[in-house]
Formats: sequence, C-alpha cells, structure tokens
Amino acid sequence: MTQYIKIPVTVLGATGVVGQRFVRRLANHPLFIIQHLAASERSSGKRYREACAWRLDGDSYGGLADHVLVPGDPHHAMSPIVFSALDSGPASELEPLFAQAGALVFSNASAFRMTREVPLLVPEVNPDHLRLIELQRRHHGWKGAILCNPNCTATVLVMALAPLHQAFGVEKVFMTSMQAVSGAGYPGVSSLDILGNVVPFIRNEEEKVEEEIPKMLGRFAPDGVELAAVAVSALCHRVPVIDGHTEAVSVKLKGDPTPEQVREVLRAWKPEPQALALPSAPPVPIRLHEAEDRPQVRRDVEMDGGMSVHVGRIRACPLLGIKFTLLGHNTERGAAGGSILNAELAHAKGLL
Amino acid sequence: MTQYIKIPVTVLGATGVVGQRFVRRLANHPLFIIQHLAASERSSGKRYREACAWRLDGDSYGGLADHVLVPGDPHHAMSPIVFSALDSGPASELEPLFAQAGALVFSNASAFRMTREVPLLVPEVNPDHLRLIELQRRHHGWKGAILCNPNCTATVLVMALAPLHQAFGVEKVFMTSMQAVSGAGYPGVSSLDILGNVVPFIRNEEEKVEEEIPKMLGRFAPDGVELAAVAVSALCHRVPVIDGHTEAVSVKLKGDPTPEQVREVLRAWKPEPQALALPSAPPVPIRLHEAEDRPQVRRDVEMDGGMSVHVGRIRACPLLGIKFTLLGHNTERGAAGGSILNAELAHAKGLL
Amino acid sequence: MTQYIKIPVTVLGATGVVGQRFVRRLANHPLFIIQHLAASERSSGKRYREACAWRLDGDSYGGLADHVLVPGDPHHAMSPIVFSALDSGPASELEPLFAQAGALVFSNASAFRMTREVPLLVPEVNPDHLRLIELQRRHHGWKGAILCNPNCTATVLVMALAPLHQAFGVEKVFMTSMQAVSGAGYPGVSSLDILGNVVPFIRNEEEKVEEEIPKMLGRFAPDGVELAAVAVSALCHRVPVIDGHTEAVSVKLKGDPTPEQVREVLRAWKPEPQALALPSAPPVPIRLHEAEDRPQVRRDVEMDGGMSVHVGRIRACPLLGIKFTLLGHNTERGAAGGSILNAELAHAKGLL
Amino acid sequence: MTQYIKIPVTVLGATGVVGQRFVRRLANHPLFIIQHLAASERSSGKRYREACAWRLDGDSYGGLADHVLVPGDPHHAMSPIVFSALDSGPASELEPLFAQAGALVFSNASAFRMTREVPLLVPEVNPDHLRLIELQRRHHGWKGAILCNPNCTATVLVMALAPLHQAFGVEKVFMTSMQAVSGAGYPGVSSLDILGNVVPFIRNEEEKVEEEIPKMLGRFAPDGVELAAVAVSALCHRVPVIDGHTEAVSVKLKGDPTPEQVREVLRAWKPEPQALALPSAPPVPIRLHEAEDRPQVRRDVEMDGGMSVHVGRIRACPLLGIKFTLLGHNTERGAAGGSILNAELAHAKGLL
Repeated sequence: MTQYIKIPVTVLGATGVVGQRFVRRLANHPLFIIQHLAASERSSGKRYREACAWRLDGDSYGGLADHVLVPGDPHHAMSPIVFSALDSGPASELEPLFAQAGALVFSNASAFRMTREVPLLVPEVNPDHLRLIELQRRHHGWKGAILCNPNCTATVLVMALAPLHQAFGVEKVFMTSMQAVSGAGYPGVSSLDILGNVVPFIRNEEEKVEEEIPKMLGRFAPDGVELAAVAVSALCHRVPVIDGHTEAVSVKLKGDPTPEQVREVLRAWKPEPQALALPSAPPVPIRLHEAEDRPQVRRDVEMDGGMSVHVGRIRACPLLGIKFTLLGHNTERGAAGGSILNAELAHAKGLL
Repeated sequence: MTQYIKIPVTVLGATGVVGQRFVRRLANHPLFIIQHLAASERSSGKRYREACAWRLDGDSYGGLADHVLVPGDPHHAMSPIVFSALDSGPASELEPLFAQAGALVFSNASAFRMTREVPLLVPEVNPDHLRLIELQRRHHGWKGAILCNPNCTATVLVMALAPLHQAFGVEKVFMTSMQAVSGAGYPGVSSLDILGNVVPFIRNEEEKVEEEIPKMLGRFAPDGVELAAVAVSALCHRVPVIDGHTEAVSVKLKGDPTPEQVREVLRAWKPEPQALALPSAPPVPIRLHEAEDRPQVRRDVEMDGGMSVHVGRIRACPLLGIKFTLLGHNTERGAAGGSILNAELAHAKGLL
Repeated sequence: MTQYIKIPVTVLGATGVVGQRFVRRLANHPLFIIQHLAASERSSGKRYREACAWRLDGDSYGGLADHVLVPGDPHHAMSPIVFSALDSGPASELEPLFAQAGALVFSNASAFRMTREVPLLVPEVNPDHLRLIELQRRHHGWKGAILCNPNCTATVLVMALAPLHQAFGVEKVFMTSMQAVSGAGYPGVSSLDILGNVVPFIRNEEEKVEEEIPKMLGRFAPDGVELAAVAVSALCHRVPVIDGHTEAVSVKLKGDPTPEQVREVLRAWKPEPQALALPSAPPVPIRLHEAEDRPQVRRDVEMDGGMSVHVGRIRACPLLGIKFTLLGHNTERGAAGGSILNAELAHAKGLL
Repeated sequence: MTQYIKIPVTVLGATGVVGQRFVRRLANHPLFIIQHLAASERSSGKRYREACAWRLDGDSYGGLADHVLVPGDPHHAMSPIVFSALDSGPASELEPLFAQAGALVFSNASAFRMTREVPLLVPEVNPDHLRLIELQRRHHGWKGAILCNPNCTATVLVMALAPLHQAFGVEKVFMTSMQAVSGAGYPGVSSLDILGNVVPFIRNEEEKVEEEIPKMLGRFAPDGVELAAVAVSALCHRVPVIDGHTEAVSVKLKGDPTPEQVREVLRAWKPEPQALALPSAPPVPIRLHEAEDRPQVRRDVEMDGGMSVHVGRIRACPLLGIKFTLLGHNTERGAAGGSILNAELAHAKGLL
C-alpha cells in the first residue's frame, strides 16, 4: 500500500545536539526515512557512531550507528526533503544549493528566517505562510525552497501568543526567559559558567525573539508577510537546566480580557496540525496547568515528546493586563520536532 | 575611650539561615555587641552550637558556640537594639513587646512592613523615613519602635530604582526574578524541587515586591508615607542558586533618558550611608558592570560582603525605554546586613 | 478469562516519594490492581490528590486522583498483597498486623530486613530465599508474611555481585556510593545542603549495605540464611542528582578472573525473573557499557524503566583484582519496582 | 630593607584557569613579583584583559589587566622563577628551555612528574626531595631546574597519607574521588555532560594518582627516589561541583591503629612549611572535622585560601582498617598554591 513508501530525507549537521534529535525522531517516522546523514568534511566518510558520541537516551544513533556520513552538499546528500541542523554560517551557504537542486529544505538555522520570501513557519500558528514558497521559487527560479522554523525561544512564545492574537489581538509582550544549556549545542556552555549561576546574556537571542514574533504573527500577502503590530521586549538568561526554556510572559491584549477568558481561549485552541492529525503534532498544542507552581521545566517539559507547550499561573498583570508562565522544549518543539512538523504540514498540503 | 563601649543587642531567631548571618556580621561589629541570642522554646536553654548546625563559612557560631539561648521575650532577651530574624507569625506577636519595652526592633519579618507608622527602611533609599518612628511612638505610646527592612527581592530592586527615581522619576517597573534557595530558609526548598529546575512561584513574593516599592520610594509625611505613583509588575522564580537574586528589570522613566544617562546616574549616586561611612555600607552602593554577560550571581554576589547591588547590560527596552540586569545578595543586603545597616543609620542619627 | 482477574493490593505510605512510584507502577499492572491507598492519620479521608502533590511525570496520581485514602491498618486497608512504602518506625508496627491478618507484605522499609525469618529478596539474586516465609509463618503462626526488599544501595550492588558470586565467589567488596537525593524522600535533602556540594554521610547507610549483602548472597537453610563470607566496606555520599545511585566498586573474586572473564559472566547472566518473564523484570538484568565514560546516571538510569542495573569500566584493580562502575535506580529497582518484582515472583511461585 | 626586594617571576599559561589563580596569588606576594605573563602565540602582544575573561572573584586580573602578554620562551619571558600552568604538551617543550636558561621552573604540568631526576614536591610531605635538583643539574648540565607539583587529586591524598606513613607506614590505599569541574580547565567540562550527573571517568587520572603517591612517599636517594611500597587503587569521578575534590579513602596501616590514634596523628602533624612559616602555608596542614557529615566541599574547601586539606569521619574499615573522608582544593593546594608553596620552600632553603 502506498502509505508504506516513505519519502527519503537528508539530515545536515547530523552529529550535533539538534542533529541527533532529528535522527531519533526520524528513526521510526511514518512518512519519512533517512537517506543521508551529512556532516562536516572532518566527519564525512566516518560511520555515524565514530563521528560523534550519542547524547540522547533511547536507541543509540537511531539505529544508524553504522551509516556512513556524507558531505553536506547536493552532490552527495540530495533528497526530496532536507532537514538542516547547521549553524548559521554553513546554512547560509549550503541550504540555497539544496533548494536550487529541488529539495524542500526545513531549516533550523537563523540564516534565512527574516528573509522576505522565506516562511518562518510554526504549523499551529501560521500554516498559510507556507505559500511564501511560491514567491521564493518565482524570485530565485528554484524548484525547491527553504522553510525555516523560528528561534527556539520565539517558537515557544509564539505558541502561546497565536491563539491570543487570533482571539483578541496582541499589542505588547514582555518575555523574560530562563533557558536551558542544550540551546547552545555541544560542548556549548561550559560547566564553569553555569553551575550554581544565572548568565544574563545569550548572544543575539533577544533580537531574534523581538523580530521573529511580528513576522510569525503577521498576515500572509503574496509579496511577503505584513508584520504584526506587536511590540516585544525580550530579556534572555541561561540557567542550569538541561532541556526546556521557561518564559515569564506579560501581554497587553486588545479589549483587556480577564485571566479566565485568556485561559478559555488557550484551552479551546484547535489549530490545523491537530485537526490534520499530523504525526508529530501533540494531542493539544497547549497544556494548561492549574497547580500554582507549575509548569516546571524538569517535571513537565518532556510531556508529549516535547511538542506541546505549557502555560500556567495565568493572572492579572498590573502593567499589561495578563501575565503567565510559559514552558517549552527548546530542542524538540523549538528545533528538530518543529522542523519535522513543518515537513509534515508541507506533505499534508500536497507540496511533496 | 568611649568608642569601645558597644551597644548590647539581641538576635531573635538566631538559629536560622538569617539569624546565623546576623550573628556572623555582629561578631566583630564596631558599634554593637551580642548580649542575647534568642530562639524558640524548643531551643532555649541549649548552647548555640547544640541548637543548630552552623551553615556559613567563617568562624563557626561567630565565636558564640557556647552562648546559652534564651526565650525570645523582653523578660529574658531585652537589649536596647533587637534584631529580628523571626518568621512573620512569631514576629507579629513578639516584636511589639520589645518595642513597648523600649527597644529599637530592626525586623527582617514581613509582619509590619506595610503598617502605616512603621518605616520600611533602606538607608541609601529613604533615610528620612526613619522619622516615622515618631508617629509610631505617639500612636502606640511606645518608648521603642519597630523598623523594618523590606523583602529581599524588593530591597535589591529599590536600590537600583532609587537613584533613577531621584534623577528622572520612575513610572513603571517590570521585574522578573531568579531567586536563590536561601531565601526560603533552612531546610526550605527541597532539593527534589529545584535541582535542574525552575519553580515559577514563591508564595506572596510578587505581592510583596509590588506593594513595598511604592512605599519605599514614597515621600515622608508626618502622618505616614505618600506612596510613590510607581506601577510594578513582579514575576518571581526560584532557581538552583545558593545565595543571590538576579532580577531582569525594565523601567519607564520620565523624560525617557538614554542608557548612557541611566548609567551615569547610577554611577554618580552617593547616598547617605556612604557619605556617613556607616560601618556596613559598601564603598559604592551600586557596582556597574561593563562586560556584556555580567553581573552573574555566582561570580559577583559576594563582593563587598554582599552589601552592594550589581547592575549591568543597561540597554534600550522596546516597551518601557530602559532595561537592565540587577543582582543582589538576598540574605546579606536583603536581610541581615540590611537590618544592621538600618541600626547603624539610627545610631548615626542619634536615635540610640 | 482468568488472566483478567487481578489481585487487589494495598499501598501503605502512598503519598511519599516511593509510594507514588508504587502507584504509578501499579496503574496498569497486568496482575495487580490497587484496592486501597493508605496514608497517615492526617491524610486519611482525603482524596489522593488533596493529600499530596504528585511529583512524577506520567499520568498524575496514576489515575487515582479521587481515590479516598484510608488509615494504614488491616481493619481499613486489608488486601491479599500489601506494598509498604512506610518509614521504619510505622513499618515495624503496622506490617506485622497485616501479615498476621493474612497478607503478603512486600516491604520497602528497613525494619525487618535483618530479621532471621524474613527474606531479603531480590528475584534475580536469591529467589529461593522466598521459602523463609515458611519459617516465618511457623514461628509467628501467621497466615501472611513479610518479605523485604533491601536498601536501595545494597540492591544495586547485589545485582552486580550475584553473578560474580555464582561464577567465582566474592570475597571482598569495596563500594563507594554517589547517591541521588530522592533516596531521602520528600522534602528530604535540603537544597541548601546539596547544591554544588557532596555530603559524605547518609545515616545508617553504610551499615545497611555492609550487613545486607552477606544475607542476600547467603545460602538458604530451613532455619534461616547462612550469611555469605563476604567482607564489605561501604562509603556513602550524597550528590546533586535526582534519581540513581552511582557506585564505584572493587571486588576480590576467587581465582582472580580477568576483566574480560568478569564481563562475560555479567553478560551471560540469565536469572530466574528473566526466564519466568515476570512483568516487571527488565529484558536483561545488567546492561553492560563499552564507552569508557559510561554508565552515567543522568543518561542511563531510566532505561528499562529503571529496573536493570548498569556496569561499565570493568578493569583491573591494583588491590582487589577487579573494579568497575555500577549504576542503578534507587526508587525503582531499589524500592517500588523491586518490591513489585518480589510480588510477581511470589505469584509465579504459586504463593498467592 | 632587603625584605622589600622581591624576586621577579614569570607565569606561563597565564590566561587559563590555573594561570589566573597563579596571578591572583602572586598579586600581593611578600617574596615574589610578576615580571612576565606569558601565553600562547595567539595571545602574546595582547593586554591580559584582552586575552582572556577573568573568572575569579577578587581584584580583576590581579591588578595586571593592562600587562602585555609575551611569548612563553626564555628569550621573551625569562625570570629567576617560572611558574608553569601549561598543558602537558607545551610544558614538555618549554619547561626544559627555561631550566637550561637558569630558571627554577615550578610546574603544574604532568610532563616531568615521573621523571627520575625531577622532584614531585609537596613541602609538607617530602621537602627533602628538593635535593633531586642536584641530580637533575648534574644530569642535564642545567643551571636551573624543573620542580613539579603532583596531580591535584594525588596532592590532596598525599597530604593525608604523609603523617600516617611517617607514624605507622601506609601499605594499601583505596581512593574514590568526586572531583570538581575546574580540574578540567576552561571551557573544560561541558554543562551538558555534568548537570545532574556523575561522570565515572577522567582520562589518565587514576593512573596518575596510582603512580605519583609512591614517588612522593618514597625515600630520597642521591640517584633518585626509592618508591614507597604502597599499593594504591584510584577510582575517579567528575561531579557537578566548581572547586574542590572530595575523596573517600580507606587505608591499611602497619600495626592497625585505631581511628582515635589516626586522628591524633593527623591532629599533631607539624611539618616543615608550618615550622618555617612559609607565606602560603596554612596554619595547620590538615583541618580535622568532628561533625558526622563534614567536610563538605561547598562549605569547607575555601578555608585557609584553599591550602589546607580536610579530614573527617575517621572510622573503622571492615577491609583495610581505617576509612575517612578527605577534601582539598584542586586549583589552589592542588595547583597554583601548591606550586607557589614549592617556590617558597626553595627560597627558604637558600636555593634562590
């Protein structure tokens, strides 16, 4: 039966923290099957298990321990779908080559997120932005396309803002993050810097959140996205947590709804990935917590394979009207899982 | 010579986390000498070293290991100065008894902080609020008085707000805290709750910060303090840090000064305790950091014996105008050290 | 069909750290079904969700959030099987009452572990010790019996020692533990004591390990167990880890086998629970690690639901001959899971 | 007066974790004054503050923020005394050049520790091993010499073993370490590897401890050191602690003294650095702890500037006779402080 013919995919940057999560998530994926694992020149030619240490639990190397790594260019690593866990530098060079060669490139890198013709896609939030790839193809003459998922902190935030923006309109957002060390990759944050500490700085993070939110919440137009008129202030911190970003959020909503109205909107939200039952979509996009001290990152973030976000402590804010605690998984929903969900959406929309 | 005649003091709640810091700070104090260590009924009659485990570094038990604990009432523990490290419940009962008996009670408890006739005192911020004790004595017919230091998180915050309020006027404040576990006392926060975690809730903490700031920044009037017209929104979190509260702060200042102007005001601030050279006053009240990733709690908070606060990353805020990172020591400046500095101010003002 | 008729069980001490693990493990157990959740007087009469905060991930309260707690005595809480997560004090009082009333009491408490007629049972290690309950019943005239699982640290250790004892004979054991905080229950270890720290003392822990190992490795005899002639030295430490005890082990084995021979014995071990395919038995009792820096508690301990133990770095010891790293889950294999596995063994042996 | 003429010194590897500790310790040293700070080619020519981030508390860059770094060779960086914080590779190349040029090189590197003619020096333990430099000079025709301090873990261990070896004779030693991350330098241990974890492997560490102890406890002879007949088994672990190695030690002593006799020997130990009152020598070399749960690394390791070691829980060991908890500062006593103390000893012995 046709549903058993899976679509071959490539993972670029397969040895890193996010690359490994791509591999683990794709190991038994119902639609996709890994064709190529690509890595830097230094690693290509090696077996996957030789090129890196597997840092996740679950089946080591996603069952591909002996898979031989190839260089990350279309000549060696072409597939209809390419998942990119590259850093921004290599991404800006390599991703266009794959798009030109005809691949749909689902990128976790920041290189093209703010590029006019590139969708900054979260399937629950702005599935219609997918159509930007028409503009992109016209513009570049490509057969493929680049589709970005946003910065991890921005992804988690926009999941909570989207239903509020649809229901009320979001005008202002304060967001103070307490971010996990896995967001910096491996080896990433030195233990000497973070044990028993809070580091009040993550390079470019505040800027990314402040600029990506208006694009994601913006209205699709054939020649690009009209940015939403949402003013965002982000204050980003690193804390001694392995996975999961906690965000303290205050919002000014039009009409100044009550906490109870906000809670009801979040609870009732049923966006497209859940309606389409995409394989990686969590049962509900937002888990609401009633306990006064939840969500808590260590206790809650792994629920739903890290694909839902968590909201709790919805209460009145003396300044903006509503404040709440938000939590999401930075390397699942905010990286590998989000990217794969984007590909599932593209598949469901007949783009493959 | 007269300067060697020290004023006898009592420490109420001497066995706890804050009580021990009182004892350590008073061990070689130039003005004060411990006369009584008081503790709960269960502990009174025991030697200090028998009644609790010393949890600080430095000379164990402040040299008073064999001091016999007395019950915490004026009959057994009266001194001209009483430092109270009691919890709110016992504080509300016992502190008035000492004030009535003629003691100046410097209290770290929340019981009377918002009481009209009680000064909520930070010597750098509102030394003139000391005069509220006249109202208090008139009102109650006491010879003594109760003087409170604020909540630890509010203390740190008001240290940064005060010079800005004097120079520009503070209108709105967003403050997201990442607080140390020592703020909850001992045993306090269970390790099962905080290792690798962020807890987005500290009971009553947000309320305390939101109500104490306007009182501290308010204008003294003979019949009480006129609250400052400052709207504060506090979002409080516990993080796996031993000592020191990190606060992410955004402020709306009148006239919308630039980050450079704000930095200059903080740098130039020379409030009264520094002018008077009070023994526990730090050389400068605010340490400004230039490195883009400082202040950091583990690396900076112990400077100046924990009595200065730290400000860094002063930058533009898209919403309120100015944002910065703030750091202070919760059990020194925010508790024992702050209380002792209050007593030193009272002494310098001739109230003893 | 008969396999659907499950045996009703009681959980004593259902609100604590281990009690919650019992409830989670029993939620969908193929043989057992929870009839009674018992707790202290203070909690009985309350619903489960009212009496404690659920601290585990997975379905909150094991689906029994509204189950009403009963007092922990046979009058209110009798079932054919009783799992006890009580502290030693209440255990010594209540467990005999249930045994007398006819229940098989599977106890996690230390109260009766070293009692002559009580089996100290680990199904992979000494399933024949089950027969001690005949002595117990004769001795006390009980219809039921008490069956203990060992101290968590001793459980993990004996899992690695048992196959070596069978193959070679264990003569001497050095064991230095680095233990998780969950072993102390909730609230248990204060965060002020363990963040960034190592505590070189756990009350009675070294004694328990040193005395329980010889009983577990001993030979069954109708009138009790002949202690094995194994000398054990235990040095126990608390480290800032949530779940999982790491143990650095050196052993003197008869005949001085090589590391490779030891590895082969551990790899080939197929004890009774695996042969019987008991529901809670892990696929293999010992997971062998080849990487030079494994096992690691955070990365490995949750494998197999925490029911296997992990061995790595098997190498020559200049003093005793063989040393290795050992890891196991203290609240699963070392507590709730171990106890339930004991009950499954008793069931398989027809004792129910 | 002559005591004000200080001896110029060079610090090789001044930008690293240990290099910074050298600089801080030498900032106000009574005998030595920093003449050259040397670093890798990449850093030479830069100011100290440009070449690295200062990671210690206290005066930033030891007051030498604007000192210009020089290349680490005798042509650019010669002084009568050279402190080396180099890694083993560069050390093996550069240290002999300085010795040949006439400097006394006090090295923290492992390169020459086991070389026959190089003293492996701890002033409290084997001050007479200093005389090995005569052999070294004869052998190489050098005017200078290389003097090593041992591996940090071995340093801490030998401090406790030395008085026992003198009093009784040490025959066997079991040592399980729980080591701080600072031992791996900066960035060193990734936070992803150590948060909430124990890593049971530190490359070459066990071997170093096992071979260095017999050399340090050995008897000086003109043609080298006769190794002591002490068998050591080391089991080394990394734990989430910033500074300070905890060691669980068991020892077989000749004559099998009681714990009380051992305690008395440790308490009464007055070795040469204390008799000579060397500037960096702690008041007592071993701090004995009576509390059943001490020493604890976070609470005790900074005492005496990290130059004393701590012993507690001296008790009977079922296997070797005596066991105890040992604690010492890996980057002070075990690195920079130890090296400087060696230089002070050499100075006191008239070698400069």
